[in-house]
Amino acid sequence: RIKASGLKLQLCTNETQATREDFVRKLQALGFDISVAEVTAPAPAACRLLRERGLRPHLLVHDDLVPEFADIDKTNPNCVVLGDAAENFTYANLNEAFRLLIGMEKPVLISLGKGRYYKETDGLKLDVGAYMKALEYACDIQAEVVGKPAKRFFESALAELGVPAEQAIMIGDDIVNDVGGAQQCGMRALQVRTGKYRPSDENHPEVKPDAYVNNLAEAVDIILQQL
Amino acid sequence: RIKASGLKLQLCTNETQATREDFVRKLQALGFDISVAEVTAPAPAACRLLRERGLRPHLLVHDDLVPEFADIDKTNPNCVVLGDAAENFTYANLNEAFRLLIGMEKPVLISLGKGRYYKETDGLKLDVGAYMKALEYACDIQAEVVGKPAKRFFESALAELGVPAEQAIMIGDDIVNDVGGAQQCGMRALQVRTGKYRPSDENHPEVKPDAYVNNLAEAVDIILQQL
Repeated sequence: RIKASGLKLQLCTNETQATREDFVRKLQALGFDISVAEVTAPAPAACRLLRERGLRPHLLVHDDLVPEFADIDKTNPNCVVLGDAAENFTYANLNEAFRLLIGMEKPVLISLGKGRYYKETDGLKLDVGAYMKALEYACDIQAEVVGKPAKRFFESALAELGVPAEQAIMIGDDIVNDVGGAQQCGMRALQVRTGKYRPSDENHPEVKPDAYVNNLAEAVDIILQQL
Repeated sequence: RIKASGLKLQLCTNETQATREDFVRKLQALGFDISVAEVTAPAPAACRLLRERGLRPHLLVHDDLVPEFADIDKTNPNCVVLGDAAENFTYANLNEAFRLLIGMEKPVLISLGKGRYYKETDGLKLDVGAYMKALEYACDIQAEVVGKPAKRFFESALAELGVPAEQAIMIGDDIVNDVGGAQQCGMRALQVRTGKYRPSDENHPEVKPDAYVNNLAEAVDIILQQL
């Protein structure tokens, strides 16, 4: 409905459990007409950054994300890239990433997002941000976050759209990463009352959405009514 | 040598991978004449706190520490107690502790220390503090730390000794938890250049030991020379 109306659309995801190809395939199977070029995701942004700075990553990410890093030199690592590794967040893997970092003269930790948790059908799960904080504390460093809510991430999505921030609106369920991140970039933002939304979000000390909507369909209704 | 000289001795450990009984047995096997009463450790301190406040813990601790909580009601938990769980720091166990906390009206997380990492024969490992930070961030809460460097922990050790802070000296390898914690309590503190000591500790922005010693034997030499 958004695309049919003539509005431009870009999906901004912090999904790091799969490649963009997998992600798009899932949406297509659900009946959405989406292509890879319409998806802004952290892994390709991280690859650009790694190439620019000559960094060779040790990956602590989900197995299914590894193909996004196929063309990146991973020998003799001089940084750690952290994604939502899910089952790969083992005690052994976390210690390995930690030892690599603490052994570097100037540890570089690149995190594909800083979400606190997310919801799956079997319940809430710790997101990459929690593990990022663990490694930051252990090494006394600050991670570089690629993905929402980084300003550069939203700017890159706007560049794909060819639309200035003030003409764009973000719809999301994450008060900090979706709503706060987009607003800091000059966009307006709607929070849906689904997914990881919790009623306490409506009293968030720092972020206030431009409006709340009950779900994604209602967000689309309201946007199309303004045309 | 310390005990033979007539000085009083108390071991302050953040060891949470074993009961005090196990810990003392290990030291006795190494030839040290130590009893359980001479050990101040986080788990008994946590048990006192749980009883005082009517808290029923969900334990995310090392299997070998569980006996310290034998007399504590653990049904229908209303708090989480976090120790250095080592191999028990699995993805599933961390998600379980997180879900319990985020489901509480006012989440209570009690952490048996906040060390960043420690050294074992097979290398450096993430300590309980890193996992505490992960849960703090995910739940947007502050943990209550029992164990070093909490002031109450050192005060309880001094009470065992019956010695005022200004007449006591702490010897440790951890610049923040041993040296900083003891100094904040009014004690003097020596840092040994062994164990988790790293040369960069000597430029620590906040903590400055009263002196450095190359190892524990040298600390004892120096202390006995002052008598």
